[in-house]
Amino acid sequence: MSLGRFTLQLAFLHEADKLKSILRHSRVTFADRRENDAEHSWHLALAVMILAEHAEPGLDRLRTLEMVLIHDLVEIDAGDTIAYASDTAKAAQAERERAAAERLFGLLPADQGSRLRALFEEFEQRRTREARFARALDRVQPILQNVHSHGAAWRANGVTAQMVRELNGPIIRDASPPLWERMDELITEAEANGCFPVRDSP
Amino acid sequence: MSLGRFTLQLAFLHEADKLKSILRHSRVTFADRRENDAEHSWHLALAVMILAEHAEPGLDRLRTLEMVLIHDLVEIDAGDTIAYASDTAKAAQAERERAAAERLFGLLPADQGSRLRALFEEFEQRRTREARFARALDRVQPILQNVHSHGAAWRANGVTAQMVRELNGPIIRDASPPLWERMDELITEAEANGCFPVRDSP
Repeated sequence: MSLGRFTLQLAFLHEADKLKSILRHSRVTFADRRENDAEHSWHLALAVMILAEHAEPGLDRLRTLEMVLIHDLVEIDAGDTIAYASDTAKAAQAERERAAAERLFGLLPADQGSRLRALFEEFEQRRTREARFARALDRVQPILQNVHSHGAAWRANGVTAQMVRELNGPIIRDASPPLWERMDELITEAEANGCFPVRDSP
Repeated sequence: MSLGRFTLQLAFLHEADKLKSILRHSRVTFADRRENDAEHSWHLALAVMILAEHAEPGLDRLRTLEMVLIHDLVEIDAGDTIAYASDTAKAAQAERERAAAERLFGLLPADQGSRLRALFEEFEQRRTREARFARALDRVQPILQNVHSHGAAWRANGVTAQMVRELNGPIIRDASPPLWERMDELITEAEANGCFPVRDSP
């Protein structure tokens, strides 16, 4: 019995290794390469540890950490989609992620698979304070990376300050108004520093 | 006050990005490259989530997760040392890591810096059940990576099955006898499959 669980658990951890090869659109700050989902997930978990005091009171830090550690696993099958993608692209991505969750969490013993699947759904639905905070930090990280790289991904993808505010403001503010206030200041500084694409003249 | 804390916390998270460029001696299973410390830390945290049921009863999963998420940060300054290094090399490494912990955790607000520093010391000292389990999984992961890569790092570094058992057995068994039993079986299979360096004839 215990051996059966070990076999399934180790097979899942082996499959999860593939997350190290899924590349994001964001770049690593101190190296000339794209970031992968595994190192992103680690950095996000570290941010949960460090910034938890700015979340809504009563945050369950363990569940929040577990949520961010598994939130990108579905991209092993479904790949990464930039946050600024079209609604059609995002809907197709959501469908691929559902199938991926079924396959990947299905590798585990049934009780664990169900628990992780529920954590992933919780993250996606953003209805609990833990999911709101996890999703907010998932938006904070690329903003910080852009601020530190003179807007490398913003400029490469034609993302304006207005797009950054409209897409991320509601999600970050919803989890932590002071965190959004700080991000808003950083975006304003980034505008002054030329971190956004230059607009075409009308 | 809150702004001051944000500034320190975001500066720490920025500095922590460097962990993505610290390379280990182990290799990523599904790509032809060495693993970095950030993705290793993520994989280790996932292993804590999945294998916690095999730890000593009463494991504090939150503290264990936090411990593995920060355990390698000191390598930003101190670099990686292979587990099979000499005692002299390990002592020099420990000294570099102490200085690194001082600098890195010192970037945070004092209360948080002290808490993370204490977590790092707890991991190193291996006296609590959480530290024993974290340290055990830190040894399990390279064994699994070697098993899946036909002993790539073992063969490259002249590491024998006996060395693997002597170095890892006590640490893994101490945290979870059934986990060591499973690892021991995998090492035996790896021997049969030629995953260890061929011995010179006497």
